[in-house]
Amino acid sequence: MSVIYDRVALIGLGLIAGSMALAMRQEGLAGEVTGYARSQETRDTAREIGLCDRVCDSLAEAVADADLVVLAVPVGAMGEVMAEIAPHLAAGATVTDVGSVKQSVIDAVGPYIPQGVHFIPGHPLAGTEHSGPRAGFATLFRNRWWLLTPLPDADPQAVARLDRLITAMGAKTDRMEATHHDLVLAVTSHAPHLIAYTMVGVADHLRRVTDEEVIQYSAAGFRDFTRIAASDPTMWRDVFLHNKEATLDILGRFTEELFVLQRAIRMGDGQHLHDYFTRTRAIRRGIIEAGQDTGAPDFGRTPGAKPTA
Amino acid sequence: MSVIYDRVALIGLGLIAGSMALAMRQEGLAGEVTGYARSQETRDTAREIGLCDRVCDSLAEAVADADLVVLAVPVGAMGEVMAEIAPHLAAGATVTDVGSVKQSVIDAVGPYIPQGVHFIPGHPLAGTEHSGPRAGFATLFRNRWWLLTPLPDADPQAVARLDRLITAMGAKTDRMEATHHDLVLAVTSHAPHLIAYTMVGVADHLRRVTDEEVIQYSAAGFRDFTRIAASDPTMWRDVFLHNKEATLDILGRFTEELFVLQRAIRMGDGQHLHDYFTRTRAIRRGIIEAGQDTGAPDFGRTPGAKPTA
Repeated sequence: MSVIYDRVALIGLGLIAGSMALAMRQEGLAGEVTGYARSQETRDTAREIGLCDRVCDSLAEAVADADLVVLAVPVGAMGEVMAEIAPHLAAGATVTDVGSVKQSVIDAVGPYIPQGVHFIPGHPLAGTEHSGPRAGFATLFRNRWWLLTPLPDADPQAVARLDRLITAMGAKTDRMEATHHDLVLAVTSHAPHLIAYTMVGVADHLRRVTDEEVIQYSAAGFRDFTRIAASDPTMWRDVFLHNKEATLDILGRFTEELFVLQRAIRMGDGQHLHDYFTRTRAIRRGIIEAGQDTGAPDFGRTPGAKPTA
Repeated sequence: MSVIYDRVALIGLGLIAGSMALAMRQEGLAGEVTGYARSQETRDTAREIGLCDRVCDSLAEAVADADLVVLAVPVGAMGEVMAEIAPHLAAGATVTDVGSVKQSVIDAVGPYIPQGVHFIPGHPLAGTEHSGPRAGFATLFRNRWWLLTPLPDADPQAVARLDRLITAMGAKTDRMEATHHDLVLAVTSHAPHLIAYTMVGVADHLRRVTDEEVIQYSAAGFRDFTRIAASDPTMWRDVFLHNKEATLDILGRFTEELFVLQRAIRMGDGQHLHDYFTRTRAIRRGIIEAGQDTGAPDFGRTPGAKPTA
């Protein structure tokens, strides 16, 4: 691969930025990668493990002369960061972000984008329940989707260049309108996360069953929920607060649907349950066929380190 | 290992029975393993793949002279099967089951147990979203819990012998009172399954988002739900109908809790959300420390076949 950007500035050095740094280095996609994180501890760790070429102690230093700036901070912090870096951006630079919500980031970041700077919002559909500068790995994006939600007046060449970088890190790109993105993600990610958080919280409150029992006997179902519910609290707080309408809409539908199934259990309507479970099984087949998961049984039992494929 | 039972009869030849057959063969734990399934197709498949030593065409033939009979059929079918095999059981035989609900199985099976036959209800906390005679693998039980809920008058020697078999297949055993088992499992498995089924159903109904989008962009959250929601419909119908009270109790608590979180989102109460998510994260750590999962990020991305450890 050849260099796509001469200097990439990563703002926020968590799982996503760290994985980008490692993937860009592995594929030789950036001349230099600078990084900045608000916390001294994160910067120290990033330096210690050599996460990027240069860890900077200020936002201004990190973005100076960068031709790509990646905002990889919680959604609620994007606007503030953008306001601070705006005066220091090079002419012709591209700013992108990796937030899980798109319209609110556009609303928060857009007004601070200087003339002559390109803003191309994005969202990699990749992650694990781990966070922080040590959580990244070079193959995180491999075969994952990375959605771009460029505004109607976006510069096609700037979008194409960012697209090349993302593809070179192993991801597949698609484009989508920002509000539609937020609805799709409310269904596929945001509502499921809130539900998992809720169920894990219920188990924690239930005093007739001990914590030890819940933990020891966490068979398939609950264990998968706890993995989801272990994700970064700050990131997820911001996701829910910034995709409020779509998430509440989906949760409302979810509750209705749950009540219908609860009623079927209460009334002993086995036919209704069986029909419902047969339909949901077919959706799973679709996901395997679409290549978004494997059919191999797993449940987190596979030993070993970080995924390599 | 040495032979623990001279003849083991497996009634129902799905994921659990198939895995038992393979594990017993691998470790040399049974003199002979017979098998029976109601469906001709399942019996044919089991013969074709040599799942057990002898596949029988009748229940009576399968259980004749068996010193261990394993009921591995859906919870709702246990009573009927037991009524049919009762006259054919050898004196001194042990009958166990692998149902996910224990009190209703005791109520359904218990009355048919002949004098001199031991009944020791059990539940392996192991499974995948696959089912049928081809789904089994010898290591399914390795390092998993297998709960026994013997009645107060159970013969200690018969229980110890069954315990030896289970342990020799790689599982860890524990004993529990049947109704307590049903409550613990409602929290750790039954309610999470119903919730996952519900969320997958919501996605299926939502017409503003296409099925293709839901499937393609099924990031971590939703994908894990679809895996849970792909489990065997008949088995799960029976679980919910036979653990009705405990499941409805937990679902009621879940809904209350979800409403509190929805309200926090609507009111913009970020502190409440952040505190909640921080607590749930700690539970996940407990599960990893208890050895019920690994800390490695995975999300079904690890390629390869069936788990081997």
